[in-house]
Amino acid sequence: MNARIPTEPLQQPEASRAAPQALLDALAERFGARLSTALAVREQHGRDEGSISAPPPQAVVFAESVQDVQDAVRLAAQHGTPVIPYGAGSSLEGHLLAVQGGISLDVSRMNQVLSIDADDLTVTVQPGITRKALNEAIKHTGLFFPIDPGADASIGGMAATRASGTNAVRYGTMRENVLALQVVTAAGEAIRTGTRARKSSAGYDLTRLMVGSEGTLGVFTEVTLRIYPLPEAVSAAICSFPSIEAAVRTVIQTIQLGVPIARVELIDVNSVRVVNAHSKLGLREEPMLLMEFHGSPAGVQEQAETVQQIAQEWGGNAFEWATTPEERTRLWTARHNAYFAAVQSRPGCKAISTDTCVPISRLADCLLDSVAEADASAIPYFLVGHVGDGNFHFGYLLDPNVPQERETAERLNHQLVSRALALGGTCTGEHGVGIHKMGFLADEAGEGAVAMMRAIKQALDPQNILNPGKIFAL
Amino acid sequence: MNARIPTEPLQQPEASRAAPQALLDALAERFGARLSTALAVREQHGRDEGSISAPPPQAVVFAESVQDVQDAVRLAAQHGTPVIPYGAGSSLEGHLLAVQGGISLDVSRMNQVLSIDADDLTVTVQPGITRKALNEAIKHTGLFFPIDPGADASIGGMAATRASGTNAVRYGTMRENVLALQVVTAAGEAIRTGTRARKSSAGYDLTRLMVGSEGTLGVFTEVTLRIYPLPEAVSAAICSFPSIEAAVRTVIQTIQLGVPIARVELIDVNSVRVVNAHSKLGLREEPMLLMEFHGSPAGVQEQAETVQQIAQEWGGNAFEWATTPEERTRLWTARHNAYFAAVQSRPGCKAISTDTCVPISRLADCLLDSVAEADASAIPYFLVGHVGDGNFHFGYLLDPNVPQERETAERLNHQLVSRALALGGTCTGEHGVGIHKMGFLADEAGEGAVAMMRAIKQALDPQNILNPGKIFAL
Repeated sequence: MNARIPTEPLQQPEASRAAPQALLDALAERFGARLSTALAVREQHGRDEGSISAPPPQAVVFAESVQDVQDAVRLAAQHGTPVIPYGAGSSLEGHLLAVQGGISLDVSRMNQVLSIDADDLTVTVQPGITRKALNEAIKHTGLFFPIDPGADASIGGMAATRASGTNAVRYGTMRENVLALQVVTAAGEAIRTGTRARKSSAGYDLTRLMVGSEGTLGVFTEVTLRIYPLPEAVSAAICSFPSIEAAVRTVIQTIQLGVPIARVELIDVNSVRVVNAHSKLGLREEPMLLMEFHGSPAGVQEQAETVQQIAQEWGGNAFEWATTPEERTRLWTARHNAYFAAVQSRPGCKAISTDTCVPISRLADCLLDSVAEADASAIPYFLVGHVGDGNFHFGYLLDPNVPQERETAERLNHQLVSRALALGGTCTGEHGVGIHKMGFLADEAGEGAVAMMRAIKQALDPQNILNPGKIFAL
Repeated sequence: MNARIPTEPLQQPEASRAAPQALLDALAERFGARLSTALAVREQHGRDEGSISAPPPQAVVFAESVQDVQDAVRLAAQHGTPVIPYGAGSSLEGHLLAVQGGISLDVSRMNQVLSIDADDLTVTVQPGITRKALNEAIKHTGLFFPIDPGADASIGGMAATRASGTNAVRYGTMRENVLALQVVTAAGEAIRTGTRARKSSAGYDLTRLMVGSEGTLGVFTEVTLRIYPLPEAVSAAICSFPSIEAAVRTVIQTIQLGVPIARVELIDVNSVRVVNAHSKLGLREEPMLLMEFHGSPAGVQEQAETVQQIAQEWGGNAFEWATTPEERTRLWTARHNAYFAAVQSRPGCKAISTDTCVPISRLADCLLDSVAEADASAIPYFLVGHVGDGNFHFGYLLDPNVPQERETAERLNHQLVSRALALGGTCTGEHGVGIHKMGFLADEAGEGAVAMMRAIKQALDPQNILNPGKIFAL
């Protein structure tokens, strides 16, 4: 395994692919004030929420239409210059870094809902709309878009990283919920990858090939999504456990029984502490599960009773219910703020987030051994997880000025990924490969599969201009 | 649109790619008696359940291991000879036809269950196992594999055509239920496309690219599937309606309300008549819905009550329940036999099956206009549909000796596909493109998307040896 946590700003050998002046001139002519070369703008577009840094792109284009995207890509293609699509900047694996130079193509102004087809439970949006804005825009229909990665990410970015989050255990991930895309190819052509039909056997599944391609195969300009009726009844509950193992065993049994739980999040005692401090909550300082049940009133009750029984067998406390929407929002906001709360708990620290996902039967093995290793290290950490999917995140809180801490975090991360792969899992459940996990991908998928990915990339982007240097080296 | 119903056995210009004697000799040396050049064997492998014919392949290899598949592909690659994977022979769009010559690679003897991971709700099988055999093999675990296209198809073939069927409205299609594959590439290399984790963001989604690739990108040698707990309660009911429209409106409302119905099949009055005659049933000769509800006893009752109310508003009769497993099996067997019953109802006829799928809100428009057109024609037909997905099949029963009937069927099919595409749908919900729908695919996906599919094909199979002449022309 050669994945690593770089200590220096990253520049790949091909950094000579910086946008030449001729391209900048052509872009300025085409885009006027919507081309920016201001350092602050470039720096803001040259980083994400991850821990890696690189020199910024040479310019930022603010696209407002499909034609804008096509023209920007075509101009870049003429100069063989990299183009990095940018949505909300919330990715975690260095996806937005201009490691080979080039231009950032900001689609955040393309944030319209293009059509709401409530009768078909679909919506078509521009890529720059964020998930919260989308849910605001469709609220009046009684429908909602469930995928919730925590951050208020853009829909285009979520599709590009195959994001998921807390609701995926019931509603699936972006893989299941993107029905079709409009994509601008490396040649600047706009194509459609599917229809609004719920299913299709019409040729290669270009939609699913594009979802999770991290900007390397095309720039998304329209996204058609499945949306869902707001459940008649929603109940959220928290349940504290004497140990992480007891909580995890409860989850495993819940999933194995086929209970259609909508959310089931593990929050370790470290996370409970920082969340209590940050969000002024009085949660019992024990490992806990934060759960949500969706359905008819009777269905929700039935699900909750089943899970309560299982939890009891594992020594869980009585469920504490959040019955009003306000209480639920407060709990989920606290959960989503765990990352920031944890980072704030150690001033000046950087958080390295892991993202392994394993088959549910292996969850306890994978997680408990890694908890023991983290406890034995000197690194402060927190642990949260979409454990119904077998996906969890350690956040190692390291002092960037202490090399020893980086090394320890790196070692813990390697051990965790090795364990997950040995148990039939993946190095990344939802964050994507980006730069950070390129070494892990080869270990997981094997050289043959990575070679197939490379061959597809080379066929669709022969100049390697679309977000180069991510997922795999070419 | 240039899709057509060919009247003559089909041979593509590249038919000169027939396996040369040197290849047949090499295969004979490697496979001994597991290579057959007997005409009867070749003819059986050179057709499927569709309406098109072509000259048979030059030889059939019976593979019994991954190594067998690799060696057969490698030998064929040395001679640039086409290889056509063969499972159960139940495809409908000419997928198995040796339109450019070559060898058939029969994997039906690779029919083992490799591992049952009941705790993870996954199973890994060889591609030649059929869906019924798979369900027999896992019955003792209390789990089942829901995808049911009617025919007892092989799992490899179902993955290759992105099959679905009656249960897809609740459980999804092969797209959602294949977790990972082992695939032998055009170069004879065996790769894995994923892990057993429920979700992953680890690079391009090779699994979904392979699912639905109709044998053109690789030969599947292992398939890892999601399986599900057998529902605690299952109820099946039939409900007759005064008109197809009333039945369809009931379905649309059921889906729009988010009722998690497991199966909802439309059966028109023509189908009811032939099924009554064939299966000795006394079903009321009116359009009907055949439904199944899965869940907890309370959940099933709740779902059924909701749908009953909707049906009543549309003039549906009281539900007739099939409460025992035997009664349910009898009903579903009758449904699955509709195709054969219809074909037998007009001795000597050939059935042409349509496969459009539209967004649910457009279902009534698409279906009713096409029923009117079919009624106005002289062609006997039947209509069945997985209407919860917006997918339905007309079967036109034509006398192959009357050219006028072929032309009429062709015209009806074209009109239906045009209508479905205009309504945001697809030409094929579950059968695949094969040979028959190549013209429709270009109309549906657009030249740019088809060009992207071609580029992928050329990158992964530069010699075009894997099931050539299907999906698109190269």
